[in-house]
Amino acid sequence: MSLGSLSLVDAAAGIREGRITSTELVEACLARVEEVDAKVEAWAFLDPAHALAQAKAADNHRRQGRPTGPLHGVPIGVKDIFDTADYPTEFGSPLWSGRTPRRDAAAVARLRAAGAVVMGKTVTTEYAYYNPGKTRNPHDPTRTPGGSSSGSAAAVAAGMVPGAIGSQTNGSVIRPAAFCGVVGFKPTHGLIPRTGALLLSRALDHVGVFGRSIADAALLAETLVGFDEEDPDTRPVSHPHFVEIAGSAPPLPPRFAFARTPAWKFAEPVTEQAFAELVETLGDNAGEVDLSMSFERAIELQGLVMAVDMAHNFHRDYEQGRDKLSPVLRALIEKGRQVPAVEYTRALAASANLNAVAESVFDEYDAILTPAAPGPAPRGTATGNPAFCSIWTYLGTPAITLPLMQDESGMPIGVQLVGRRGNDARLLRTAQWLTEFVAGGGRRPGKKAKSGSTKRKAAS
Amino acid sequence: MSLGSLSLVDAAAGIREGRITSTELVEACLARVEEVDAKVEAWAFLDPAHALAQAKAADNHRRQGRPTGPLHGVPIGVKDIFDTADYPTEFGSPLWSGRTPRRDAAAVARLRAAGAVVMGKTVTTEYAYYNPGKTRNPHDPTRTPGGSSSGSAAAVAAGMVPGAIGSQTNGSVIRPAAFCGVVGFKPTHGLIPRTGALLLSRALDHVGVFGRSIADAALLAETLVGFDEEDPDTRPVSHPHFVEIAGSAPPLPPRFAFARTPAWKFAEPVTEQAFAELVETLGDNAGEVDLSMSFERAIELQGLVMAVDMAHNFHRDYEQGRDKLSPVLRALIEKGRQVPAVEYTRALAASANLNAVAESVFDEYDAILTPAAPGPAPRGTATGNPAFCSIWTYLGTPAITLPLMQDESGMPIGVQLVGRRGNDARLLRTAQWLTEFVAGGGRRPGKKAKSGSTKRKAAS
Repeated sequence: MSLGSLSLVDAAAGIREGRITSTELVEACLARVEEVDAKVEAWAFLDPAHALAQAKAADNHRRQGRPTGPLHGVPIGVKDIFDTADYPTEFGSPLWSGRTPRRDAAAVARLRAAGAVVMGKTVTTEYAYYNPGKTRNPHDPTRTPGGSSSGSAAAVAAGMVPGAIGSQTNGSVIRPAAFCGVVGFKPTHGLIPRTGALLLSRALDHVGVFGRSIADAALLAETLVGFDEEDPDTRPVSHPHFVEIAGSAPPLPPRFAFARTPAWKFAEPVTEQAFAELVETLGDNAGEVDLSMSFERAIELQGLVMAVDMAHNFHRDYEQGRDKLSPVLRALIEKGRQVPAVEYTRALAASANLNAVAESVFDEYDAILTPAAPGPAPRGTATGNPAFCSIWTYLGTPAITLPLMQDESGMPIGVQLVGRRGNDARLLRTAQWLTEFVAGGGRRPGKKAKSGSTKRKAAS
Repeated sequence: MSLGSLSLVDAAAGIREGRITSTELVEACLARVEEVDAKVEAWAFLDPAHALAQAKAADNHRRQGRPTGPLHGVPIGVKDIFDTADYPTEFGSPLWSGRTPRRDAAAVARLRAAGAVVMGKTVTTEYAYYNPGKTRNPHDPTRTPGGSSSGSAAAVAAGMVPGAIGSQTNGSVIRPAAFCGVVGFKPTHGLIPRTGALLLSRALDHVGVFGRSIADAALLAETLVGFDEEDPDTRPVSHPHFVEIAGSAPPLPPRFAFARTPAWKFAEPVTEQAFAELVETLGDNAGEVDLSMSFERAIELQGLVMAVDMAHNFHRDYEQGRDKLSPVLRALIEKGRQVPAVEYTRALAASANLNAVAESVFDEYDAILTPAAPGPAPRGTATGNPAFCSIWTYLGTPAITLPLMQDESGMPIGVQLVGRRGNDARLLRTAQWLTEFVAGGGRRPGKKAKSGSTKRKAAS
């Protein structure tokens, strides 16, 4: 196995334990970029010399015996909506070409504090909305990688970097992760600070992570969680133990609430069939919940909040540079400008009622099980339908997509799990159980381990 | 001096030290109600037997040697927008007649935890907006007590209760306190939880207090400050020391920024003259700052946020019972319904810019000095113009009004001081300095003490 395909967890351990150097790892990742990126085009900015300089500094730091963080020397891709003091940050818009921020976004600062190498900036759609960037799906260059965190998902999927960060205001982490066949994880709203990231909507913006395994995503997310006094939705919280809890066995086999949701009308036949099979295999571990009535307007409400907040936050760009905005963004802003304030306040307030419904589901189930997207990545450049994500972004619940399925041509299909707000670690553990369940062809992962541990207990 | 005219601080100390009982104090207050309330009509609900029962319970509690809180046995008036589990809470609206909440508002719960007797519910205007209740100004029954915390201000001014709580979304604490000639104090937005109080506007609603001295207001406010997980604008904070700091000498004589603000066009000649004299007497301790440009639109922005938020929060009342709403409230709701969402989001966001301007003033001055109202309480029932308060409510700064002036007929005129957000204790100390300065006929209160302390220093 090449260094470039190491998992994030193994890469971090390898560097920490001196088995590999950051320089070797970054060189391997750069070789992979050289090999595949002409086809994928995941990077908005990548300076190999600068990435290597960071890696060498990390290696020197370690050789001096100084303390290292959990991501020491590990290269990470950063979506080009997060400010970086070294690389430009252009938001995927010509209006900001050449923009070089003076300080790192809070999430980037946390990556660096953990020792990470900021490999480069990954391609985003225009302002993290729909208008696509240059990136193509690593599994099939005629298809979209999804958006808006297109480059982050594609770079991780193509093995150019073991992990990356992105953001989700509608479906921008879950959808590209599903289309590219990697794990995408969006923790509870307010857990990861958004300071210094492009502001689309305070109520909807989430920072999310990409990895090739649940453990990788857990490690990256765990590093990013924390209070930031400039993000009013974060709160002082103790350090989470995502990796540890994700890697532990659930005390009971988890129960999944299969929810079609109002997005189900967009589901393609391959998705309908795949989920029917999965639910059948899960047997007693799955139940079906009908959220169609309660959540009927949720997708529309998410869209309304997003339109108003983006019309507000991109007011100046629209007023002064609308000819340099894509038609789809202009249309959104014009839609947002038409919304009466009381409809906006009502849409913001309604999420509390829908969260009460979701909470009652989580009283009975460990996670909601639902597609990540209507089907595999569509052909063309349009980034696909985010409807299966809109509800969970609007509610601020943690969500993860797992690359557990494929269509006949081998294109990945994501399985989305949604957890109770604040119960991110439990969602990761449930996701790990489901991954092992599917990998084991439908055998409950808990079973064998449990009998094994009983034996050990008897022997001790 | 009768028991009923005791200050809140003295009453609390008297009960704590066993010199008076809560029963004696409440009886004296009830006697004063009997004497003057037919003229003032400050109370929406007052059950003498229930007030006395609480007083007797407080006395029994103390006689058993159990620990007592800082307001043990002291009767407090509560504006009828705060839920009380014993008294009805009707919001000054016939739509809610007979409403009896099942639990206390957070502020009321804090009063009771401090040992206070909830004397009764004080009259509010309809939904704490403009349409007046029955209360009249204790200084002149042909004049308004101001609104919306009409009964709280009037009850304290008339000696029916040593302290009361109210709320301010525009000018509803400062204005009635100024009109009734008492101290009204509105701490920084988010210091006192609003859970269980009628919600007009999350961004604008403040809980405030009324007392006959700064120390009384400080004690009451200090009891109410704290985190409440149901009020998202509160934060965990350590217990404030308002009383202690309000009673200490400032390290330097404070400097006052006399600010006419865009409300100045409403100032009556008596106010113009009184402030000119006060500023002249303050001499080097006052400077004039011109906030007219920066704050030009602040009053309008406050009004816009309030109209939208009230249209949102009273949506159902308007849809189902608009014939039972006053014309002035209907007009506000109809105005709020016309506002585009992006104007609302811009109005909400603009307060940050104006706060930056205010912060720069507080880098040079201890407090902004400005009228509390255009003049003394107007004749009639209309509750008066809140424009001198709108800016400071919109900014969330702490504000206090002091009964330092009178017109020729003896009607009180309030002097409003505004402090830096979070510097509430310092504002109270500055207010105490100004009160002593005015009482001393323009002699700096610090001076005498300072020369005295110098002498002591020389002698030591």
